[in-house]
Order: sequence, then structure tokens, then C-alpha cells
Amino acid sequence: MTAPVTSLPFERVGIVGLGLIGSSIARALRKSGSARAIVAIDRDEAVQARVSALGIADSVTGDAAAGVAGCDLVILCVPVMANAAIAEQIGPHLAPGAIVSDVGSVKGAVVRDIAPHLAEGVHFVPAHPVAGTEHSGPDAGFAELFANRWSILTPPAGTDPAAVERVRALWSAFGSNVEIMTPEHHDLVLAITSHVPHLIAYNIVGTAADMETVTESEVIKFSAGGFRDFTRIAASDPTMWRDVFLTNKDAVLEMLGRFNEDLAALQRMIRWGDGEGLHALFTRTRAIRRGIIASGQETAAPDFGRHAGLSAPKEPGA
Amino acid sequence: MTAPVTSLPFERVGIVGLGLIGSSIARALRKSGSARAIVAIDRDEAVQARVSALGIADSVTGDAAAGVAGCDLVILCVPVMANAAIAEQIGPHLAPGAIVSDVGSVKGAVVRDIAPHLAEGVHFVPAHPVAGTEHSGPDAGFAELFANRWSILTPPAGTDPAAVERVRALWSAFGSNVEIMTPEHHDLVLAITSHVPHLIAYNIVGTAADMETVTESEVIKFSAGGFRDFTRIAASDPTMWRDVFLTNKDAVLEMLGRFNEDLAALQRMIRWGDGEGLHALFTRTRAIRRGIIASGQETAAPDFGRHAGLSAPKEPGA
Repeated sequence: MTAPVTSLPFERVGIVGLGLIGSSIARALRKSGSARAIVAIDRDEAVQARVSALGIADSVTGDAAAGVAGCDLVILCVPVMANAAIAEQIGPHLAPGAIVSDVGSVKGAVVRDIAPHLAEGVHFVPAHPVAGTEHSGPDAGFAELFANRWSILTPPAGTDPAAVERVRALWSAFGSNVEIMTPEHHDLVLAITSHVPHLIAYNIVGTAADMETVTESEVIKFSAGGFRDFTRIAASDPTMWRDVFLTNKDAVLEMLGRFNEDLAALQRMIRWGDGEGLHALFTRTRAIRRGIIASGQETAAPDFGRHAGLSAPKEPGA
Repeated sequence: MTAPVTSLPFERVGIVGLGLIGSSIARALRKSGSARAIVAIDRDEAVQARVSALGIADSVTGDAAAGVAGCDLVILCVPVMANAAIAEQIGPHLAPGAIVSDVGSVKGAVVRDIAPHLAEGVHFVPAHPVAGTEHSGPDAGFAELFANRWSILTPPAGTDPAAVERVRALWSAFGSNVEIMTPEHHDLVLAITSHVPHLIAYNIVGTAADMETVTESEVIKFSAGGFRDFTRIAASDPTMWRDVFLTNKDAVLEMLGRFNEDLAALQRMIRWGDGEGLHALFTRTRAIRRGIIASGQETAAPDFGRHAGLSAPKEPGA
């Protein structure tokens, strides 16, 4: 009989990139007791200083090669186009048997960019926690960011099941639900649930800013009519999102094509006064929101609970 | 010297249509002491029963002609395409000197539909409170819905300034800021700040629901990546929104044309790998959100405060 595999804790976890996600992982590791030591690795000296001041890691360094030495888990938390260079840099310094993971919003490109730099005996378990806020940087993170959210793992075929199990255990310890799928399917699912929504949000905020007949002050004043809901995700980190669109190009363009076709049909309904068609679509879309609320991925409070503390209306009965 | 005009309270306010907005007005009237009596008028017997049970009006009737008799203010709170029939019905029963107002999200069509049915000596002061939630019906309303939101008045040229002043005083008593503009400008401003955002939200939720390679369960699970933000406004009242698009067709199609042009440019940037162009747009859009938060039209809490109660991150410094 072999000794049972102990999934958690990890002995030494290296986090590369201490932004919103990386700093939230550091906090969640400590809160859940999932790491005996946390090494924060960030080339930005201002970030290093903030991480030290916040006290969310046991050591802080700008030297990635030295930082990953002796780690049994290294998580890359950088914009996805930065992965290749970091993987190349840390590859030779990873301990045999170490697990490398990441948190990228695109998985096909991440597998292509990271895997070639890892020696045999190093396990690669890509991950994507589907969670975030519009804020960036080490001060924006918090340990509960991943609670009740889904994390997707996309291990390449043949990955050691014990390594996958340890990463799964880690995300479970953070309060996440975990699902495993192929990188290709991940990129398709996220294109419609995340990437295209961000693109559209960025786009309409840009369109509004360019109006010559409506002032920016008017856009801001009257944003409670719907516009402001788009501005939250349009305030997300520009570098991260540039990389997402450049690395998940095919799936984004495919989904955007469908969006455009559907929008053209809606536009036509408006032009020709097809009230029945509009009403039918507007009724159908309510069901999806009910599903999202029922699944715990959203608050049922009206207006996202912006009126929290005021007399709380009930769910609509009719 | 004449006696000073007393703006508030009104003696008897008739509210036609007790949905989210109408029932919120009833509550706000009572809370602010702006009406000596409130008459709730709704042809739907289920709504009449709820309004009676909630006790938010002094009397409840399904007979609009009888309900408006003796009112010095009547506010139509129905989908905009229902206004013409109601105005025709109540026109002959309005007291001389009474003020008629509404809350429609489109103002050009409202003026066209209502004004012809009002006798000389009846004042018409159209209004649009830019506030709402995704919930519908009399149970969804609350008195604070209009607090710190903007209400737009679009009185036709030549409207009695005293009548305009009384309506302005009313919205101020509800906690709203008030702005006056032409119906045409209103419809342009709201097309970009409210109507097109709703259309796009309805559209992407529909596109996601129609995927054959991504299941509805996946769309729901992974909606925290951005998609769920769109589902809130895509859960708004279908009849109200059908009417908005049919009655503000020209401005919506104009704004949608601009949106489409901009999206085509973004799509091209993705296809050709123009990272600089994407980054430049994604950076620019952050400023608009800062403006919206600074103006009090939005909460600065990350993720719309969905994480309220957890450790609150600071505003991003970098």
C-alpha cells in the first residue's frame, strides 16, 4: 500500500503577478491554510512594496527564477501574453514534481505558450477562476473573491491525475466550484460569457464618449437608465483585456458574428415596427436571469442591490 | 400683490398604472407629504387588489374617467403606447387647471399622443424619471427609487411656468434632480444612455441562449465573467421596452448605427491584431466610469457591491 496523497497544504507556493487575482490568491491561501509559505513574485517595485506593506506573503521578490526555487506550486497571474516569457524564465528553476498553474482568461494560447518551457516531471494544470472585479492591483484583492464562483481547469491530456487533484483541492479550499474541460471548449464558453460582453461594454462606452450631440455630462447624469451597468466591466484592466482579445481571436470573432447577426435582426424589427418579435425576445431573456440568480451567481436584489438598506421590494409576482 | 403660488402639496393626485414607477410615486407622494389624497387607477384587478392590500393609495379604481375627476395632478405611468387611449378616455373628465404629467421613457411620441386630448386650461408637463429596477409590478416599487436620480421635464413651448414649477417641486420633494430639455433632445440622450444599452443587453442574452456548442447551464455557471451584468437590464418589462423601441425608432436606429460602426472597427482591430488600438480604447473608457461614480449615479464598490460585507478593497491606485 502506498501512503495516501495529501492534497493540501502545499509547502511553498509561488505567485507570479500580484494584481487583483494574484493578491486574492495570496490572501485565500493564507485564510484557508493551504500553503505553509507564500512567495510573492512581481517585477514591479511599487507592487512589491504594497505586498510587503499588506503582509499577504511570507517573502517578496522581483526575481522570478529565485522566487520559484523550491516551490511545489507556482501560479502565473499575469496578462496572458506575458506567460511565455515568464515560463521561459522560470522553466529551468522549477523543482522536479512541481505543479505550474495559471489564472488566464484564455486557455488555448496559455497551453501553447507555457507547456513547451516546462521540463518533464513538472506538472501543468492550467486554471481559470471565473471571478473578478473592475478594480486592479494588490490592494483590490480579497480572500473571498472566489467563493461560490466557478474555476475551470484545462489539464492537457496525460497530466498526472494527482496533480490535477491537488489543484482542484486548492480551488475548493478557496470556496470555488471546479469544472474540468478542454482548452478549446473553455475558450468558446468564455467568449460568449465574458469576452464578447466585455468587448460590447467597451464599445458602447466609447460610442457614448464620441457623441457630438449629447455631452459627456449628459451621459453621466442619465446613466442610471441602463448605460452605467456597462461601465463597470468597461473599467476592467486594459492590458489584461487587450491580451484576451488578441489570444482568443477566433472564438471572439465567431461569437461576435452571431451577436451581429442577431442585432441586425433586432434592428430590422425596430425599423419595420415588429412589436411582436421584440416582445417575444424581451420575454425570453428573463428566464436566463432567473437561472443565474437561482444558481447563486447573482444577487436578486433589484438594481444589483444598489438600493440596499432601503425598503426591499419582493420578487415580481406578475 | 397676489398671493404666493403654493407648489406643494397637491390636493388630489391620480396615478394611472401602478407598476414599478406608479407604485413608487404613490409611496414617494405619501412619504414626502406632497399629496392630500392619492387615487390609484389601474384596469388590472389583480393590481387593484395588491395596491389596496399594500395601502399605498387613499382610493383604488379601475375607472379612469371617474378616477381623474377632481384631481389637480394626474400622472400617466403606463407603457408609452398606451398613453393615447388613456388620454382620450380621461381628457373630457379633467378639471380645468389640472396638470397632466407622465413618466414615459420616450418624450416626442408622448407629446404627440397626449397633448391633442387635453382641453385648453389643462396643463401638460411631461416628465421622465431616469430611475428604475429590473422588477415590475406594484410590489416592486419603493419611495426612495427617485432619490439622487435625475428627472427630465419636457414641457411644450408655451406651457404655464407655474405648472412646470409645481411638477419640478414634486420631483425635488422625491429627492430627484430636475433638468428641462426639449422632447427631441431627450429622445437622443436617452437613446444612447438607456435605449441602445437595453437593446444590446437583450440581444446578447438572446445570442447566448441560442448557442448550440455552449449549453445554457454553462452560460449560467460562468456568467460571473461579465455576462450577468447584461442580464439585469435584459430582465426589464418587455411591454414597456417594446414600446420604447417602436416610439423612439429614429434616435435608436441612429445610435445603433454609430454603435455598429464602432464595433466593426473593434472587430477589425482584433482580426488584424492591433493591440495598441485596443489598449487605447480600453483605457479611455475608464474615465467615464469615474465620472459616473463621482456624480453619485453609481456605487464605487467593486462588482456593484455584490461583495458587500466582505473586506472592502480600496480604489485602485495604479
